[in-house]
Amino acid sequence: MLRKDGRDNESLRDCVITLGVSKYAEGSCLIAMGDTQVQCTATVQEQVPRWRQDAEEGWVTGEYAMLPRATSERTDRESHRGHRQGRSMEIERLIGRSLRAVTDLKALGPRTILVDCDVLQADGGTRCASITGGYVALAQACRWLMNKKRVKTWPLTAQVAAISLGLVAGELMLDLAYEEDSRAAVDMNLVMTSRGGVVEVQATAEGEPFSVGQLGQMMTLGQKGLKQLLALQAEALAGLQS
Amino acid sequence: MLRKDGRDNESLRDCVITLGVSKYAEGSCLIAMGDTQVQCTATVQEQVPRWRQDAEEGWVTGEYAMLPRATSERTDRESHRGHRQGRSMEIERLIGRSLRAVTDLKALGPRTILVDCDVLQADGGTRCASITGGYVALAQACRWLMNKKRVKTWPLTAQVAAISLGLVAGELMLDLAYEEDSRAAVDMNLVMTSRGGVVEVQATAEGEPFSVGQLGQMMTLGQKGLKQLLALQAEALAGLQS
Amino acid sequence: MLRKDGRDNESLRDCVITLGVSKYAEGSCLIAMGDTQVQCTATVQEQVPRWRQDAEEGWVTGEYAMLPRATSERTDRESHRGHRQGRSMEIERLIGRSLRAVTDLKALGPRTILVDCDVLQADGGTRCASITGGYVALAQACRWLMNKKRVKTWPLTAQVAAISLGLVAGELMLDLAYEEDSRAAVDMNLVMTSRGGVVEVQATAEGEPFSVGQLGQMMTLGQKGLKQLLALQAEALAGLQS
Amino acid sequence: MLRKDGRDNESLRDCVITLGVSKYAEGSCLIAMGDTQVQCTATVQEQVPRWRQDAEEGWVTGEYAMLPRATSERTDRESHRGHRQGRSMEIERLIGRSLRAVTDLKALGPRTILVDCDVLQADGGTRCASITGGYVALAQACRWLMNKKRVKTWPLTAQVAAISLGLVAGELMLDLAYEEDSRAAVDMNLVMTSRGGVVEVQATAEGEPFSVGQLGQMMTLGQKGLKQLLALQAEALAGLQS
Amino acid sequence: MLRKDGRDNESLRDCVITLGVSKYAEGSCLIAMGDTQVQCTATVQEQVPRWRQDAEEGWVTGEYAMLPRATSERTDRESHRGHRQGRSMEIERLIGRSLRAVTDLKALGPRTILVDCDVLQADGGTRCASITGGYVALAQACRWLMNKKRVKTWPLTAQVAAISLGLVAGELMLDLAYEEDSRAAVDMNLVMTSRGGVVEVQATAEGEPFSVGQLGQMMTLGQKGLKQLLALQAEALAGLQS
Amino acid sequence: MLRKDGRDNESLRDCVITLGVSKYAEGSCLIAMGDTQVQCTATVQEQVPRWRQDAEEGWVTGEYAMLPRATSERTDRESHRGHRQGRSMEIERLIGRSLRAVTDLKALGPRTILVDCDVLQADGGTRCASITGGYVALAQACRWLMNKKRVKTWPLTAQVAAISLGLVAGELMLDLAYEEDSRAAVDMNLVMTSRGGVVEVQATAEGEPFSVGQLGQMMTLGQKGLKQLLALQAEALAGLQS
Repeated sequence: MLRKDGRDNESLRDCVITLGVSKYAEGSCLIAMGDTQVQCTATVQEQVPRWRQDAEEGWVTGEYAMLPRATSERTDRESHRGHRQGRSMEIERLIGRSLRAVTDLKALGPRTILVDCDVLQADGGTRCASITGGYVALAQACRWLMNKKRVKTWPLTAQVAAISLGLVAGELMLDLAYEEDSRAAVDMNLVMTSRGGVVEVQATAEGEPFSVGQLGQMMTLGQKGLKQLLALQAEALAGLQS
Repeated sequence: MLRKDGRDNESLRDCVITLGVSKYAEGSCLIAMGDTQVQCTATVQEQVPRWRQDAEEGWVTGEYAMLPRATSERTDRESHRGHRQGRSMEIERLIGRSLRAVTDLKALGPRTILVDCDVLQADGGTRCASITGGYVALAQACRWLMNKKRVKTWPLTAQVAAISLGLVAGELMLDLAYEEDSRAAVDMNLVMTSRGGVVEVQATAEGEPFSVGQLGQMMTLGQKGLKQLLALQAEALAGLQS
Repeated sequence: MLRKDGRDNESLRDCVITLGVSKYAEGSCLIAMGDTQVQCTATVQEQVPRWRQDAEEGWVTGEYAMLPRATSERTDRESHRGHRQGRSMEIERLIGRSLRAVTDLKALGPRTILVDCDVLQADGGTRCASITGGYVALAQACRWLMNKKRVKTWPLTAQVAAISLGLVAGELMLDLAYEEDSRAAVDMNLVMTSRGGVVEVQATAEGEPFSVGQLGQMMTLGQKGLKQLLALQAEALAGLQS
Repeated sequence: MLRKDGRDNESLRDCVITLGVSKYAEGSCLIAMGDTQVQCTATVQEQVPRWRQDAEEGWVTGEYAMLPRATSERTDRESHRGHRQGRSMEIERLIGRSLRAVTDLKALGPRTILVDCDVLQADGGTRCASITGGYVALAQACRWLMNKKRVKTWPLTAQVAAISLGLVAGELMLDLAYEEDSRAAVDMNLVMTSRGGVVEVQATAEGEPFSVGQLGQMMTLGQKGLKQLLALQAEALAGLQS
Repeated sequence: MLRKDGRDNESLRDCVITLGVSKYAEGSCLIAMGDTQVQCTATVQEQVPRWRQDAEEGWVTGEYAMLPRATSERTDRESHRGHRQGRSMEIERLIGRSLRAVTDLKALGPRTILVDCDVLQADGGTRCASITGGYVALAQACRWLMNKKRVKTWPLTAQVAAISLGLVAGELMLDLAYEEDSRAAVDMNLVMTSRGGVVEVQATAEGEPFSVGQLGQMMTLGQKGLKQLLALQAEALAGLQS
Repeated sequence: MLRKDGRDNESLRDCVITLGVSKYAEGSCLIAMGDTQVQCTATVQEQVPRWRQDAEEGWVTGEYAMLPRATSERTDRESHRGHRQGRSMEIERLIGRSLRAVTDLKALGPRTILVDCDVLQADGGTRCASITGGYVALAQACRWLMNKKRVKTWPLTAQVAAISLGLVAGELMLDLAYEEDSRAAVDMNLVMTSRGGVVEVQATAEGEPFSVGQLGQMMTLGQKGLKQLLALQAEALAGLQS
C-alpha cells in the first residue's frame, strides 16, 4: 500500500536544490523536499563570537525561522511575541552542530559563517531540509572565500545531510510529510556525513516507546535516504566554479 | 542619460506578480519589482482584535519583515534582538491603513484578514511592493471568502497600489532602486486607489528641503507609475475564479 | 460656522512657548497649543551613536512619550508593557528627521543633541507641537554650545516647525484638536523650514481617499499656519543671550 | 551655619501644591518642594486587579517615573532599556502602601485608584513628594467619586505625607536636596498620617552605621516636618467643592 | 585504567535519592549523581494549558534551571538576561516528553503536574538526573492524588530514567562527569522505561562523527546503567504510603 | 500563650548555618531559620561594574531568587515571565547595601564579590536569612582571597545580620514565620552590625499605622534577636582556616 503522495515507505519526496537564489549572500539555495521549502543563505562575517575570540579558529552557526504562514495554521512571529520559542532554538543548535561537524574551523580562520534557514513553506522535515540545504549554502560560501583567497585550504572535510523518518501506523517510513509526522509513534532525525559518520541521532517516542531493535531498522532506512540526498548535494554543487 | 539598469527616469522596474505561491494561505503572491522580492500571504481569521469586538465590522492588518540576508549587509532578526524596530512597525501601520482604505469592513463581517509581507530580497521600494502585492493577496482571500459563502458582498471598493519616487542627483526618478534611494535628496511614497483617490502621501527631505512645486511634479510622476501597477494587479487577478 | 473653541477653520489655537522650564537641560521649553502641552528638553552629549562614529559629524535625535494620564483615557506606560509602541517610534523618527533637516551636522561637531518631547497633556497635534517646541530647545542648546565655545559656527541653517490639518466633516481645518482629529477623513502633518522648504509631508486618508486637488489646498492652508508658528518661535528665542 | 539655600537644618524647602493641573484626570496636582517637581494624577478605574477580584474591596496603587532630563545627567527611559529599574519599582511599592494606609478599601468599593507620580524635575526627595502630592490627587479623586455618588462613605481615614531627612556632615538635616542627599551618611524616609501614626520608616546607613539614639532624634525631626506638610495639604484641599 | 573518581568505565557514580525535601510540594526529591545535585518538585495544578483544554486529558510538563553558582564559573540568571537560553528550553522539552511517555494522561484527568528540576550543583548529567529524579517526584504527586481520591486509576504506566554516556579519549564511558563530558568526542543521552522501551535517544558527535557500530555499543552500555537507576528509583519509592 | 511552633514571642526559630555546601563557590552556606532555607554562595569576580571602574575600590552585591516551589503556592519563574518582580529587586538592593555596610571596599581592591541568595524553602524572613547567611558566605570568600594573597588587609569591618519582627494580633513577636507575617499589622526588618550600628530599619504598617513608641519597643526586641544571630555566625565561621 502506498502513501498519500504515491511514494512507497522507503522513498524520499522529490528533492530539488536551486542555487544562487540570493543576489547578496555569499552562498544560497532554495531546497524543496516535496512541499517543504527552505531558503538557505550563508553570510561570511569577518569576526568570531566574543567567547571564541581567544581561539584562533573560525565558527559556523545557523539560524532557523518559519514565515508565519509557512504552516497550515498561521503562527505568530517570534518578534511579535517578544520571546523565542524553544523549538526554534533547539533546531538552530542542531543546524550549527551539524555544519560544524564537517568544518575544519582552523582552516576557516578567524571568521564566522552564519547560515540562515528560513522556511517558506512547511510540510514536515524542515529541520532536516535546513541542514541538507544549509550545507550547500555553506559550501558555496567556502568556495567564495577560496576564490577571494581569504582561505587557503578547503575548510570542509565532508558533506553533511539530514533525513527524518519514523514509525507511522506500525510501518517504518522515510522522509515524513507533516500529516505523517503528526501521526508518527516514533520520530527520528538522522544526520550523517558523506564519509559514513553519524553526526547526530535523535529518536523520540511520541506515544509508545520503541524497542532497541527498531532503532537499528531505522538506522538502516535512514542511511539509505541520506545516500540519495548526499548525491543530490554533490550534483547541485558540481557546477560551482572553483 | 539612463539609470544603472538602463531605465529612463520615468520608468518602473520590471514588475512580476506570481499568484498562489503558498499552498496554505487563503491568498498569496510573490511580487518582484526588479530585484526586490516580497512574498505576500493573506490569512483569514474568524475573529477581530479585542479592541474592535464591539463594532460589528471586520479588520484588515499587515505585518512586515525582512529575511536577515534580504539586504546587502545581513540584518539581525528582530526576534533575536528582543525588540522590534521602529521602521518595521511604521511600515506595518502603513500597509494596514492602505489595505483598509479599499475595504468595506462591514461587508467583510466580524473577521480579520492578516496580510504578511515578507521581503525575500530587498533592492529598494519594499514597503510599496508590500502594499501592491498585499492587495493582490487580500483580493484572493476575499474571493476565497465569497466562494465559501462566508461573505455575501464583495468587500473591496477599489484596488490599491503604492510606488516610491524621489529626487536623485537633481533629477526626478520613479521607482527607486536601493542605490538610488540611498542617494536621494527627497524620498516619496504614494499610495493611491484605482478610483484615483490618494490614500497616503509621505514625502521626506533627506538632505535639502524641497519646494511645494516639486511636490506637485512628484505627484504627477507617481500617478503615472501607479496606473501601470494597477493594470498589472488587474491582469494578475483576472484569471481568479469567481 | 465656528469650531467648538470658537476658532474659524483657518486659525491656530493659542500657542504659548515658555523657555527655561528645566534647570538642568542645555535647552528647554514648554509649548502649549490650546490644551496640548509638551515639555521639550535638549541634552548635549559629547559623543555620537556608534554607527556614526566614523563620520566626523554630529547627530540630532528625538524621543517622544506621553505621561500616562496625558490622555482622556489613561494609557499604560511603555516601560510597564515591556515593549514600545509603533506610534511612538514613528513619531520619534519624524522628530529626528525634522530637526536634522535644519542642522549642519558638520558644524555641530562630534556630539549629539537629544531632544526629549514629553507630552504632559494631549489634545491633538502632539507630534507637531513636539517638532515646533523641539526646535526651540535645540536652538537654546546650540546657543549654549556657542557660549561655551565648543561650537564655532552657528549649526542651525533655518527654523523648522510643524502643523497638523485635515478634512473634517467636509471642511478643511487647521490645527486639529483631538476631537476634530478623531472625526477627520484626512489627516495631514506638514513640516517646513523658515526658508520655505518642505521637510516632510504626511497626508493620510482615514476614511475616503482624497483628491490630488485637495492635497494642494491643504498645502496652502498648512503654509499659512506654519508662518505664524515660525514667528512665535523667533519671538520666543529673541531674548536668548548670544 | 546655614545650608546652601539659606535654610537652617530643621526647615523644609518651599512647598507649593497646585491643584487641577490635568484637564482629564479625576484628581491632579503639581507639587514643588524647592526645585523638585512632581506631577501627580489620580485615575479612577472601575475594576480591581485580577488577584483582588474575590475581595469586594477596592485598591489603590501608584506608579512612579522620572522624565529623562529631570536629573542633572540625563537618564535613559525605562521603555528604551527594555526593563524597569529596581529603584522605580521599590518607590512604586512604597507609594501604594502609603496611600492604602489611609484608605478604607471597603468604602472605596470594587474600583482602583491609580496615582501616577511623574517627576518633572528632581532635586532630592522625589519619593516623599510623590506620596505627599499623591495623597492630594487621591483626595480629589475620592471627592469626584462622592460627587458622582459612586461612593457613599468618604473612603479616606486620614491624610498621609512623607519627608526625607538625614545625617549630613555630622548634622541632622530635614528635607534633603539632592546635593545634600548625595553626601548623607544616613538617609531616612518617614511616612506618617495626620493622626500621628507611622506608616513607614526606612532608615539606611549609606556609609557608617548609625546608633539607636540617632534613630530617635531623626524620628523627632521628621515629625516636625510632617506637621507642616500635612497643614499644606489641608490648605490646598480646603477649597475642594464637596 | 580507572577514571578520576576511581570508577571503571561502565560504572555509575554514587546515586542517592532523598524523598520529601520540600514541605509544600505534592512530590519532591533531591537526586545526587556524584557531585551533581538536582532538586525535583512536582506541583499539581487543577487546570491544563489553554491549548489542551478541549482534550479531556491531563498534562505533564517540566521546567529546568540552574542556580547561578551551580557551575564552576558563575552563570548569569536567565531572569537577569531578560531571555531564556536555548539549552534550558531544549532540556525542558526533553523532561516533559520523557515524563509524559510513562503517563496515562486520560487517567490523570484534567490537571497538570509540573515538575521543577533545579540544579543546585552541576557536575555533568544534569538533564538525565532531572529526568530520573523528576520521575520520583511525579510518582509521589500521583500517589498524593490517589490518596486524595482525585484520581482513581494509577496514572503511570512504567518508570522512566535517563543516563548519559559517551566516547572519551577513545573509550566508552558511562555517566560522564563534567570534566569527562567536556572532553567527549561523542555524547549520548538515553531515556528508557522500566518496560525496556526507548523513549528518547540523542547521540551527538562533538568532534569526529561516530560509526553506526559504536551507536550499538553505546545502546548496550546505556541499558546497563539504566537498569541500576530504575532499581534505585523503585527502592526510593518503596516506602511510599499508598 | 505560645506561638504555633511552641516559641514564646521573643524567641528566634532554630537557626542552623551549614558551611561549604557548594564545591565551586569561593564561599557558601545553607542557612535554615525554622523551615526557611536559603542557599548563599559568594562568587569572586576580578572586575567591577562598569560605572565603578574609575574608583579604585571593589564592590559587593547580592542577588535573590526563590525556587518556584519554595512557597506554598507555586510561583512562576521570573525568567519565564520575561520580567523581574519589584519585590526581588528591592530585596537584592537591601542585601547589597547591608553587606557593603561592613565591607572596606578599598581593602577589597578592584574586584566584585557577588552573593547569590537562593531560597530553597520559604516560611517567612527570607530576606533577613539572606543577609545573615550572605554575610557568612562573604566572610568565607574574603578568607579565600586572603589565603590566595589577592587581598592583604581583612576587608570586613564587622559582622552584619538581619531579623524580622512585627506586631501580630496585638503582640510583639520576633522572627515571624510566614503565617504570622501574613497576619502582622506591622512588619519590621532590622539590619545591624556586631558593633551595634544600625545599617537599615524598615518598618511598615500593613494595616493600622503604629506609634512612635511601638517603634522603640521593636528596636529593643530586634536587637535582642540580632545578638543571638551574630553569635551563631561567629560560631559557624570559627573553624574557618586563616
